Formats: sequence, structure tokens, C-alpha cells
Amino acid sequence: MKRYLSVIGLDDALSLFAREFSKKPSVIRIPLEDATGRITAEPIFAKYSVPEIHVSAMDGIAVVSAETNRASEQQPVTLQNAARVNTGNVVPPEYDAVIMIEDVWEHDGAYTIRKAVAPWQHVRPAGEDLAESEMVMPSAHRIRSHEVGALATYGITEVSTTTVRIGLVPTGSELVAHGTRPKPGQVVESNTVMAKAMLEEAGATCTRYPFVEDVPEKIRDAISLAVKENDMVIVSAGSSAGTKDYTADVIAGLGEVLVHGVAMKPGKPVIIGRIEKKPVIGLPGYPLSALTVLREIVLPSLKAYGLPVKEPVKIPAQITTAIAKEIGSDEFVLCSLGNIGGRWVLSPQSKGAGVQMAGIRANAYIRVPKISEGFDAGSIVDARLIVPEREAEQALLITGSHDPAIDYLCDLIRLRGVSLLSTHAGSMGGILALKKNQCHAAPTHLLADDGSYNTAYIKKYLGGAAVNLVCIAERQQGIVSHDGLVLSDLPGRWFINRQKGSGTRMLLDHELIKTGINPATIPGYEREVTTHIAVALAVRSGEADAGMCVYSAAKALGLPFVPVANERYELAFRNEHADDPRLVSLIEAIRSSAFKEILSRLGGYDTKETGRMRQVDG
Amino acid sequence: MKRYLSVIGLDDALSLFAREFSKKPSVIRIPLEDATGRITAEPIFAKYSVPEIHVSAMDGIAVVSAETNRASEQQPVTLQNAARVNTGNVVPPEYDAVIMIEDVWEHDGAYTIRKAVAPWQHVRPAGEDLAESEMVMPSAHRIRSHEVGALATYGITEVSTTTVRIGLVPTGSELVAHGTRPKPGQVVESNTVMAKAMLEEAGATCTRYPFVEDVPEKIRDAISLAVKENDMVIVSAGSSAGTKDYTADVIAGLGEVLVHGVAMKPGKPVIIGRIEKKPVIGLPGYPLSALTVLREIVLPSLKAYGLPVKEPVKIPAQITTAIAKEIGSDEFVLCSLGNIGGRWVLSPQSKGAGVQMAGIRANAYIRVPKISEGFDAGSIVDARLIVPEREAEQALLITGSHDPAIDYLCDLIRLRGVSLLSTHAGSMGGILALKKNQCHAAPTHLLADDGSYNTAYIKKYLGGAAVNLVCIAERQQGIVSHDGLVLSDLPGRWFINRQKGSGTRMLLDHELIKTGINPATIPGYEREVTTHIAVALAVRSGEADAGMCVYSAAKALGLPFVPVANERYELAFRNEHADDPRLVSLIEAIRSSAFKEILSRLGGYDTKETGRMRQVDG
Repeated sequence: MKRYLSVIGLDDALSLFAREFSKKPSVIRIPLEDATGRITAEPIFAKYSVPEIHVSAMDGIAVVSAETNRASEQQPVTLQNAARVNTGNVVPPEYDAVIMIEDVWEHDGAYTIRKAVAPWQHVRPAGEDLAESEMVMPSAHRIRSHEVGALATYGITEVSTTTVRIGLVPTGSELVAHGTRPKPGQVVESNTVMAKAMLEEAGATCTRYPFVEDVPEKIRDAISLAVKENDMVIVSAGSSAGTKDYTADVIAGLGEVLVHGVAMKPGKPVIIGRIEKKPVIGLPGYPLSALTVLREIVLPSLKAYGLPVKEPVKIPAQITTAIAKEIGSDEFVLCSLGNIGGRWVLSPQSKGAGVQMAGIRANAYIRVPKISEGFDAGSIVDARLIVPEREAEQALLITGSHDPAIDYLCDLIRLRGVSLLSTHAGSMGGILALKKNQCHAAPTHLLADDGSYNTAYIKKYLGGAAVNLVCIAERQQGIVSHDGLVLSDLPGRWFINRQKGSGTRMLLDHELIKTGINPATIPGYEREVTTHIAVALAVRSGEADAGMCVYSAAKALGLPFVPVANERYELAFRNEHADDPRLVSLIEAIRSSAFKEILSRLGGYDTKETGRMRQVDG
Repeated sequence: MKRYLSVIGLDDALSLFAREFSKKPSVIRIPLEDATGRITAEPIFAKYSVPEIHVSAMDGIAVVSAETNRASEQQPVTLQNAARVNTGNVVPPEYDAVIMIEDVWEHDGAYTIRKAVAPWQHVRPAGEDLAESEMVMPSAHRIRSHEVGALATYGITEVSTTTVRIGLVPTGSELVAHGTRPKPGQVVESNTVMAKAMLEEAGATCTRYPFVEDVPEKIRDAISLAVKENDMVIVSAGSSAGTKDYTADVIAGLGEVLVHGVAMKPGKPVIIGRIEKKPVIGLPGYPLSALTVLREIVLPSLKAYGLPVKEPVKIPAQITTAIAKEIGSDEFVLCSLGNIGGRWVLSPQSKGAGVQMAGIRANAYIRVPKISEGFDAGSIVDARLIVPEREAEQALLITGSHDPAIDYLCDLIRLRGVSLLSTHAGSMGGILALKKNQCHAAPTHLLADDGSYNTAYIKKYLGGAAVNLVCIAERQQGIVSHDGLVLSDLPGRWFINRQKGSGTRMLLDHELIKTGINPATIPGYEREVTTHIAVALAVRSGEADAGMCVYSAAKALGLPFVPVANERYELAFRNEHADDPRLVSLIEAIRSSAFKEILSRLGGYDTKETGRMRQVDG
């Protein structure tokens, strides 16, 4: 088995990158119209003076100032020698001043004035704005959108700008292009698509090369070509130490491998190589690994080429759950950041490197340093924003039981400027987060022994706090299967279950007891997934014969569904936050007719209680 | 003469805009590759589950977990029923777990293991990332560059995005396209070029229509077409109340004029009209007026269409010079903002609406409110940034005598991340700014009666402060003319002079006294311009026969130059700022060989003293 050649720390990798490469950018000429945000590669000079010749700054008459000397209110002067000019018109060379038309009495082609004028009054002299050959802007200047107009005025039609040409080489026999539905074992190539978007946003110029099969000779030819045509090359995947990971060997054959493996998570299997003096990066295949390498290694390196790479804004925030890690590796964790009652709260997301949704759900991330063993829950850590600060301020943190309805509420309130960030933790997880004040609200459907929903648990876990409950809907839970199974059919059929602590699991257990079915008679009862749709997917794939979920999940996948019970799916939030405008927006959205229409379209919801508020007193 | 129909306040104009228009955006579908920064017009759903089927999370072997139950270090188990899988490979349906290859001993096609595995270990279940039909992102979501990769994975190739289609109609018989050198009286059309850059940066989709002559019927046809094809129309120029300003009448003919004239400076002659329920804006012709209307009226209105318009960051800063204005009008002033010794200092720039360079030189602006009579020098006002905050922190404020060499120094230090902002105030203006601690450094060349440069003035005006002087160059000043005139030729020839307080003026006066020439014998002696190049331009245009300037200005315009004297052009700065990294960069640039090469290329500089430092003690 192959091993990583030389794993080094992230900071060492960045220093090495800074030291080993000359980082000479490319210069490309681009049309002025596309210049916004680009960096000038050389100073820009005016091609001619603006104005080139004296022009009138007013609507009026051009005069010889000396001929106005004796004019006064008492002794008006009538000028024969004058010319009508509008703003911007050339002042004929025989004149040296302009009188505003409002101060002139015209009759029979002559003009009477009542005031003397100083030489050059209301005349914009040649070169007033800028003179021929003067510098308009220096090199290394980021062109702002409004400056594009000024450059047009100064005669500029093309601008030499700084860029870094980056060749992106996707490798892997399993790859298909986005837009093609992947067959089993195939993967949509998304890493170079992401790399192009991220790197071009920073001012690089990227070329995506055709997919290359896992054949060393083909990879070699593709890298050689990309090195020739670019300042930097990024090879996507094959950078690990598996049997088909040829990238490191190919780079070594064409040049040298400086680093194979950086002590960071995600993103460890990265390669930094050099071919013809140019950096060649081997990007790990897992999307979040690739994202982390692009953000932490490639983007910072572009700064040294002169591109304006933005540093993330940092906000100190309290982390909701402990993060444990081993010393020796920098670890990056995507998070949901929100402000709860004036306090910034940070919830780490799933660490799975294959879960690209984490990059969409997150509005921040943290770096847990190499020397750290992690953070305890409640620690204050620096959240690095991946949204504008204003958007983070508008984040609404929802933790608890997930339902597709929550996604639609997210959609409805985003239009009002609120970002709903949902953490799927099950109903009990939500109640506990609410107890610790780690979320704004918790969607929950917890059935007590007396048949009531939610209130018993809130009293038990949040005793002392006044909590409001607003009903999202009364929701059907039932058995999803291929052949319309009911609860009593379950013994002996393969089952797919929800995790302990989820409301669905509690409802199932409640119903099993009620009907006297022993869970031990249901194979697969111990196999847990965390969402309704995952249950339905397991059934559709044939992995399980049945599971319990909400109607909408079964409907989405076109599977039969037999209702078992209706449950009250409610949103719990502390009364102290009842006036929070983000929560107010959410409750308005729950009560909107648009939301009721969505629920009826999704199916499986009874909306007669939707929007109804009740209170659990503290 | 026509008058403005109804001048209203800026805030009232914004309220009216918010009230009178429905602001329905357009939806356009764009390729995924172009989606960064765009706003989703509808929620996006996954086209299939990711992964669609259970895949291995590791390189290893797929096994039936139940068959591993008895394996231990003491009692290894050899499995006949297993399949080799790499990361991402499908786990065949007959297996339910994966064992890492590192934990497996392979021999003759069989695998020996020493540890039992739990069901579903190292298996990425179907839908782990996202399940078919789940919402990937809501509407009104600004797509971040890294999300483009995730969207590719989820099967998205095109995105419906929100935009505002804006038709830009340039009017004016005097217009020529950028790239064409304007003849006298012609103007390069830059306002719609600027509008397109500014509005598209905010997410609008702009169409520039062909230039329209000042003929009401042609303007009407152009506006009608643009209204039909867009959500909003901006008509550039003709919005004032002059004889050829037809825009308001044409809008009134096609619809209605809601506002003609907003009490703001610059930008007063703006029109807000309505045709077919759509807003039609008449943009003033002066570039800085147009810029102000775009920034203060049009961009804020795009927010209501759902586009993410950034608010400028505000920094409280001390204003260096008083701003006087009349009550009743909001006034916007472009400024240079810099941090001097921990204090934010703001220098207003020229207010001329035709000076587009002000928009390039400024890194901030202020709004002087309608109800204000202005600000006293030293007041604290809110500077609104038009550069990133980090760039403002790197601003180096230079006030004093201008020379093209300063522009080249600006160019040299921009590469080191420092933004040199130069205010042309003449040598005395610079010394006074330095006295008041309103600039980091002052370029100066002030000749005392004893023939010494700069030190006498610094002692006089900055008595008590330790000041350093670093020599930029010894610079030739001389007479620029068409026919090689010398000092003694000046009497009787038309002259173009520099402003009082400028070093060049003082040098000229010194030389006139020395040679016994009476300034009264020189016509045009009282005609003042503020830069060397403006002197040379006046000579080239024939407006003056001669002037005094530096060699480089004469050379730039190809005019004969006869030296009169060498002068010491120095940069003065307070010793307390000697360690300021921005100043250190500037001094390094002055001492660089690159700078000496530039000076020798420009000509007229003696560099033997360049970089030499001397000190005036406090």
C-alpha cells in the first residue's frame, strides 16, 4: 500500500508555498465593460485632456471679461461681442468668461448685463479634470464599478489586468458531467466546477480540462498540457493513497512532489507539487475536502499573485457542542451561526466530508488549531463568516425535528430577509437546545403517555421557563412500504427505523406497545436513520420493506403510505424571544395562506390547528 | 426658460419611489457556471438522492456484518463472502458493512479479519447528503461560489435567478462612443457605461441602447422601446431645464413625470417618471451627478426588487476643511479618508461635478444632510467607504505640491498594498495640512529668501514639531512655450501662472525680482491654474504664450522648455510618524532604483539627492 510521502502542518504548507514559487501573475487585456473588480496590471494614463479645450460650465453667453468691467446695476452694459453657449459647448478662443443666461437680457441679438465678470468665470479650463498623459490610476488598483465610466471618458477601451491562469484537470473513470444523472458507482464531477467559481470570484482565470480516466499516461498528458497553458494547475482527485491514486506519482514523474498530505481535516490528502517551476496542486476528491483545500491553501496563495482575496470576518461566538480532536492537525468545521438574545451562538454541523449540503447550510466555519484538543461546549471561539455580517445577524436558528415544511418556511421568510438555519437533531435534541438557549426555536412532536404532545416534555426539561408553542400542522405519520403494509404486518419484515429521541421513534414505540407488538420481532428495528426521507429512500431501494415517516416523504418518492396516527407538530420558543423580529416573521409565515397552500399540496397535513399558539408557563 | 416641475427632498423621492412602483423583478435562467452572486428566484430541489445507493466510505471489503460476529484478535475469522470496494464504490446489496483494507489480511482471494463490525459501518447510506425532492436552497438566496459545486452534484445545470432588466438610453447629439477621441464640443458617453457597471454589480441586467440625438421624436421612440423591453429605464442626460433638455417632456408625453428635480447636490436635475407602470429615470449629464443619482436613488431602489445592494461601511472621521452649504438640500462630497496616528481624517475633494477623477481619487464620501448648514473644520462626520475597510486603513494621505513623480510613487507603493491619496494643495497648503496633522506627508518646494528650501517654512509654521524631510529629487523648473522663450522674454507675452502659495509661483516671483522684471508687465500674470500640466496645456492650446512648470510637464506635451532654476522637491513628514509602515513603504519607494529610473525617463530631475533625509528639530 502507498503511503503519504510527507505530511506537514497547514502553516508549514503555506510557508512552503510562499517560499517555493515565484508567483508571477499573468496579464490579460479585457474590454473596459468587464473591468469591474479587476486589478490593473500597469498604470493607466489619460489618452487626451478632459476637457481638451475650454468649455462652458453653464448655459449662458461667452464674453470678453474686460468688456464687462463697467457694468453695474446702475449702469447696464450692452455687449455686441458675445456668443450664446450651452453647458459643455466650446468657449470660442476670443472669449474668456461665461455669464449665466439668467443674468442676461437679450434683445435684437445683443445682450445686456448688470454686473462685471472676472476672467475665466464659468469656464471649465482645458485639463480641469485630467490632462493628457496624467496617470488615471496606478497598477495593482482594484477597479470599482463607478470608475469604469471615468475610464471611458479618458479614452480607455481595454485594460491590462492581473490574473492567475489556473488549469483544472478532473481525473477519475467514475466521473460524469453535471446534468447527467450518475449511474450506480458514477459521480458527478463538481470539484472543478466549484474551484472555477471560487477562484474566478477572486480574479483567477480558470480552464476546466476534459475528464481524464484513471490511467497514469493519460493523467500525465493532461497535466503536461495544463502546466504549459497556465500559471498553476489543480488536479482534482487521485491525490489520496489508494490503489487508483496516481496523481502524486504522475507529478513526481513530471517534476517533484513537495508535499503529500497536509495535517488538516478535511483535506488531508492534498499534494503540492512543482512542474516547470509552477505549482501543481492535487485536490482531494471529497467535496468538503476540496472546498477546504481551495479555501485554506489555494485562495491564500492567490494573494501573493496580487489578487484581492477577502479575509473572512471573524465573530467570537459560543459553541453549542463540544468538538473533540487529536492534537497535530488543523480542523475546520462548518457551523450555523446566529444571534440569540444578543449572544452569538455557533452550532457545528456534521463533519462528513461527502455532505455537500453542509456547505450550503453553513453561514460560518471555525478553525480548531493544530495544538488544540478541541473545544468544550460553551467555549467562545472565532466564527469565520461565509455570508455578509448583516445576513448572519438575520439568521434564525432552528434545532429539532425536521419536516419538509420547515424548508418551505425557510423559503417563505428568506423573502423577508431572514435566513432560517435548521439543525436536524430530532424533537428531544431540539428541546435540549432550547433549554440551553442554543436555538431560537425547536420544532417538536413529542408524545407523552397521556396522549398529549410536547407540553409534558417542555415542563420537564424547561421547567421555570415560559415557552410558547405554535402549531405548524397536525401531521400524519404512517407506514411507508412497497405494498401498503400496516403496523401489524411489521413482525418478520425488514424495517428501517428513526433514531432514538426522535418524535417518530417515540410515536412508533407508543403504537407498538398499544398494539402489543414486540420490537424484537421486527428485523432492522435497530437500524436508524435521521430523516423521514431517508426512511422512504431505504424502502424504495429495497433495503427495507417498511418504515415509519410522514406522508410527504412517501409521496415524494411515490411509495404507498398507510396512516398510523396524527401528531401535533409544533414550534417551541421561549416567550422572552416572542418579539424577536425573526421569530415574528416565522410565525407570520406559519400563519400565511401561502404556507397552508404548500401544506395541502405536499399532503398529509391537517392545517386546522396551524398557527394556533399556546403557552407553557414558567 | 423651463423650470423644474417639482423639486422634492431626497428622502421624499426615495419614499415616493418605494410607494409608486410595484418593483416586480424579472426572472432569468442562467447557466450554473455563471450563478455565483446571483439570487435564486425559486427554491431549488435535488433532482436525485446523493448518493443514490449505498456506497463505501473507505477503501476496503464489503461484508455481511453478522458473519463477522465471532472475530477477535484471539480468533480471527476468514471470510469467503466479501467483495473488494474502493471509496465511493457501490456496496453490493448482499452486504451491509465495510471493513477498512488496513484491517484485512488477504490471501488466495479470502480475507481474514480480527474484529467484528457493526451493521452499516463505513457505508454511506443512500440520501446521506441529500434525498431526491429535498430543498437544496430557498428562493431569495444569494448563491455563494462554493455552492456552485454542490448544485452541480445535485443535478442542477441552470438556475432561475432574480434580476431587474434596466434599459439605458444615452441621449445627446454631442455624444461619441468611448474609444473615439472627442472633437471640440463632443463628449464621450460614459454615464450609461458607468450605470451598466454599477447596476450589474448589484445584479441588474442592463441593455445600453444606441445614442439618440437631441430630437424629441427620436428620444420618444427610444424610450418607448426601452420601456417595452425592460423593468426600468434610465435616460442619460437631457434631464435638466436647458433649451435642449427634452427628457421630461418626452416622459410626460408617454406617461407622467412624478419628480423633476431632487434637492441634492450633485444630482439635482433628476427625473422620476412612470411609463406603463415602470419607473423611468432621467439621469443628469455631469458624471458625478449621474454617479450620485445612481448611488443614492437607483441602487437603493434595486433592494426592493430583491437584489442585494451593499450599504457602505461608515467610519466616524474628523473633517479637515469646513463644508458650507445652504439648508434644504442633501449634499454629497467625495473625500480622501485616512488614519493618521490612530485618528480617522477626512479631506473633502473638489466639488466640481465634471471632475470624474474625484471618483477615482476618493475612497469615501459624506452626506451633508438637508437640514445642515455644513460642517466646521474638525467636526466628526460619518465617512461612507467606497473601498474595503482594509484598504482605507492602508491609505496614505499626501497633501501639498503635486508632481507627476507623486503618481509614480503611488504606483510603486500600491504594489505593497498602500493606497497613496494625493490632494493637490500647493506647497504652502501641504505645510499647513502637516501643521494641523491632516496628512501623513507634504511634498513641498518652498524657496526662502536665503535661497534655502523648505526648512525655513517648516520652522515658521511647524515650530515645535520635529519634522523629517526626504528629498524626492532636485527638479528643474523653467519656461514652457512654443518658441523657446526665456524669463526675460516674458514682458508683453501672454502668461499662464500658478496659484499663490505654490512653490512654482514663489520661485517665479523670486526669479522676477532677481532679474528686475515687474510682474505688471506680464499680461495673464493673474490667471492661475493649479498644476504643472495645466500650465503646459494652456500654452499648447495657444491660450498663453508661456508659463512656468517642471520639465516633465512640457515634455509630456511635446513643448520646448528652458530651465530657470533647480529646486529641492522634498517630502515633509512629522518625525512621530517615521515608523508608520505606510510612510516607510513610501520612503523605500523613493529610494528604490525603479523610482530613479522613472525620474530619468520623465526627465528634468537630478536624482543625486533623491532619498536623502534631513531633520528639522522641534
